[in-house]
Amino acid sequence: MLKWMNPLEVFVTGIEGEDCVFCGIVRGMERAASVYEDEELVAFMDRSPINDGHLLVAPKVHYETLFEMPYEEVGSLFARVAFLASAVREAMEADGINVGQNNGRAAHQIVPHVHVHIIPRYRDDSPVGRWPSRKAATLNALERTAERIRKVLETSPTFSAPRG
Amino acid sequence: MLKWMNPLEVFVTGIEGEDCVFCGIVRGMERAASVYEDEELVAFMDRSPINDGHLLVAPKVHYETLFEMPYEEVGSLFARVAFLASAVREAMEADGINVGQNNGRAAHQIVPHVHVHIIPRYRDDSPVGRWPSRKAATLNALERTAERIRKVLETSPTFSAPRG
Repeated sequence: MLKWMNPLEVFVTGIEGEDCVFCGIVRGMERAASVYEDEELVAFMDRSPINDGHLLVAPKVHYETLFEMPYEEVGSLFARVAFLASAVREAMEADGINVGQNNGRAAHQIVPHVHVHIIPRYRDDSPVGRWPSRKAATLNALERTAERIRKVLETSPTFSAPRG
Repeated sequence: MLKWMNPLEVFVTGIEGEDCVFCGIVRGMERAASVYEDEELVAFMDRSPINDGHLLVAPKVHYETLFEMPYEEVGSLFARVAFLASAVREAMEADGINVGQNNGRAAHQIVPHVHVHIIPRYRDDSPVGRWPSRKAATLNALERTAERIRKVLETSPTFSAPRG
């Protein structure tokens, strides 16, 4: 890529394309156990799940934190998060669901591209005040879990909330 | 209240009115250090903050978890959460912000009325993988913090995302 040719191209490939792993997933350049995609977002399994079924939801547009996103896009993202969280709960037979979205390294945001965690929880799966430890997961194992969630989505009514 | 007169009235007063502390805050029957209110939600300081500035945002309508809320109402709630999180970040000079929403006791939901946590974070404010310990706070201290956040909101453009 001749980055010096076009300032916009440098920006797009340098910031969003090459350096951002979630933009790579959006473009199909990075492998991920994908669960759902629409015009606004992608959803795929976290590679180091807190529990099996830990799903990440990311807008296709690259925003580093919630603070750069227009409010209506935040609303549209989280309306879909509720839809996807229901499917995770059903597929993973979870007792509860944490929805979390971290902004900044001080808040333990690892990848600087907005993403929402959907984490299935089970009674007594961790000491009080602590998260369960993150697990190492193979892509094969993540694909099997993704398939379980996709099967629930296939039998769900299509997401249809009007855009904010 | 003659609860036996009307099944709907029993439901409304028995579940939402008397037993739900957040419905009590919505109705002005419970004290809280209030930060913001509009037609859809209330925002007030958490009584046991993870860090000073820990804000809770709750829809006025009583839903126990996200799974009972219409998607468009979830979207509308979180669009406002983004607006309020920006104010918390500025008022508390936070390095980062966690947005969290817990569903079910297994996910450490304490009050069974949907609420979103907005938690200011600072570099190295806790050991990795743990939350900072919750603090006991007086209502006076919470009121002082609420005042700091309200001052930022007063100078912010009014929230105006269209309803989802």
